[in-house]
Amino acid sequence: MKLIITQENFKKALTTVSRVINSKTGLSILNNLLLYTDSNRLIINSTNMDVAISENINAKIEKEGKIVVPAKLLTEFISNLPKVNINLELINDKLKIEAGSYKSTINTINPKDFPEIPEIKKAEKITINTQDFKDIVNQTTNVTSGDVSRPILTGVYMYTNGDTLSFVATDGYRLAEKQITNNNNIKAIIPASTLSIVSQSIPEELEDINILINEDQVSFILNNIEITSRLISGNFIDYQGLIPSKTENNFTLSKDEFLRTIKISELFARETAGVITIKIDEKKSHITIQSIASEFGENTSELTAKVKGSAEISLNARYLIEALNCISSEEIEFNFSGKLAPILLKGVEDISYKHIIMPTKS
Amino acid sequence: MKLIITQENFKKALTTVSRVINSKTGLSILNNLLLYTDSNRLIINSTNMDVAISENINAKIEKEGKIVVPAKLLTEFISNLPKVNINLELINDKLKIEAGSYKSTINTINPKDFPEIPEIKKAEKITINTQDFKDIVNQTTNVTSGDVSRPILTGVYMYTNGDTLSFVATDGYRLAEKQITNNNNIKAIIPASTLSIVSQSIPEELEDINILINEDQVSFILNNIEITSRLISGNFIDYQGLIPSKTENNFTLSKDEFLRTIKISELFARETAGVITIKIDEKKSHITIQSIASEFGENTSELTAKVKGSAEISLNARYLIEALNCISSEEIEFNFSGKLAPILLKGVEDISYKHIIMPTKS
Repeated sequence: MKLIITQENFKKALTTVSRVINSKTGLSILNNLLLYTDSNRLIINSTNMDVAISENINAKIEKEGKIVVPAKLLTEFISNLPKVNINLELINDKLKIEAGSYKSTINTINPKDFPEIPEIKKAEKITINTQDFKDIVNQTTNVTSGDVSRPILTGVYMYTNGDTLSFVATDGYRLAEKQITNNNNIKAIIPASTLSIVSQSIPEELEDINILINEDQVSFILNNIEITSRLISGNFIDYQGLIPSKTENNFTLSKDEFLRTIKISELFARETAGVITIKIDEKKSHITIQSIASEFGENTSELTAKVKGSAEISLNARYLIEALNCISSEEIEFNFSGKLAPILLKGVEDISYKHIIMPTKS
Repeated sequence: MKLIITQENFKKALTTVSRVINSKTGLSILNNLLLYTDSNRLIINSTNMDVAISENINAKIEKEGKIVVPAKLLTEFISNLPKVNINLELINDKLKIEAGSYKSTINTINPKDFPEIPEIKKAEKITINTQDFKDIVNQTTNVTSGDVSRPILTGVYMYTNGDTLSFVATDGYRLAEKQITNNNNIKAIIPASTLSIVSQSIPEELEDINILINEDQVSFILNNIEITSRLISGNFIDYQGLIPSKTENNFTLSKDEFLRTIKISELFARETAGVITIKIDEKKSHITIQSIASEFGENTSELTAKVKGSAEISLNARYLIEALNCISSEEIEFNFSGKLAPILLKGVEDISYKHIIMPTKS
């Protein structure tokens, strides 16, 4: 292998493919990158066995080749170099790197030891606008569970119904559902960690993301970056019944004002597992947010809002803060019935995103 | 106690005095703040028994008083409030806080339980320009030791000789000496942690820092903030012999270029405890930086420099990086003699700051 590449392109690609490298995992081969040439391109691959990233970049190839090298050392070394052309050459199983006055030799590993990079076959292809995709990831992945004993809750369920494509996530205490228009025929559970990696890897100028999907695997194509992941097997929970279609009480107010008030209430609720109580009063058109008195003190805040009903409900302040951060509208709607039924949060006049929180018994 | 205060002033003062609060320390009373009124001022005090901070701010006092309240809860609560006037009132040992629609009650503790805030008496007073003080802290505190079994190495030694005031720090492997002009008569070892807290607490517009110092204590006056600390007792090491007055070899080059090269060399030296070797060649006017070959590979970089002598020396790359970050000049001088004598680093034409590194045997 012998080639010339620019420092900027090489650095960018190494940073992207390194996202799946986790030096804490057991298999030491996974701390390496597979590099190979293909006509006028250098292809860089990484994998953690669940997710694989491949990026191909422009290079002047003088001699074809294939090598495996330590990911962290190569990435840090190239990142610290000035913006010059970099010469790579394989001599006696050692990769010689020359960039101006910097000369390094990195020992390589036999490419046969590197795991095979999965290729996706017989797949459905869908296209999603990049901004829509980023919204979907921001509005769902935070609500997934970290509990690996219930794998389906660690993923985002994606399915088509008519011309609606829904993305659903839940950790058992709250649930998020985002819908966009799309008439493919899809049903899959994608690991939340994969979606986060894809979201971080999107190049700046990208308009659309192409997704290939079959029964076991999904592949995201971001120009010259391809991220392939296993899907989570199993059936997602039957969640439709958890979204209240009609509620007795609700209030509407500014998201920022509500968020600030909940953050303050949460400070006083730390000893009581973050539980706060919201009381609403239709006649006075205001809501009262209370944290339960603790060793340190207590807090009550009042806000003016458009209110329907007079009732109270208790819930976890942290869940409410995270829900508000998922909603992009400036005005939000808080809907509930009684003290035990699920709470529905959404942006005013936005029917594309619903966030459900289970109340706490008070 | 009853008073009105602005959210901005209160937030700023709470953030400053909270710098010494460490909730991991044993004494729970130290997680609190002492607040008391004095004519038209509110005084806020914190202490960790080694360092105490006091800030006094403008307030409209309606009733004098003295209370002790939880530091973290009060600071976070006030920081999250909007920029409004805040009403504080003590009722039945509870502090009622009202700010617009936000109402909170914080339980207070008996002020008698709060440790006495030390007052410094019979002290020498010196004045240091704020920028000089920041430079002194940046150029010395990083070189102190974290080893509490040798307390004097955890501090910065400050002493007068003629009209020169010197600040010296060492951890046994390297040493830094900064000198400014000042004709007071001072000799003290100040904890590095105190100097860092003072440096972080300096208000933006402050021109000079007044320092009161006696045998046991030091007090830094930053407008309406006063930081008082114990001194470290004992005699500092006799360090003068460690600073080479004459060296056989030296080279001069751009600090940024040298720094980048050392950072790259360090990547390849991780397995060898960061040891790199610098070879200098007077005839070729260049220096070569090598990291020792390891499992992963090796690195050699060449730089053009003004060189005197032809020799080589090994040292810890991390120490060299930290030394270069302490030097403010654009061009630096690297002076050494043989393989075992201390290395002297300094800015070209800057005699106010000297940084010494002990070489490693190679």
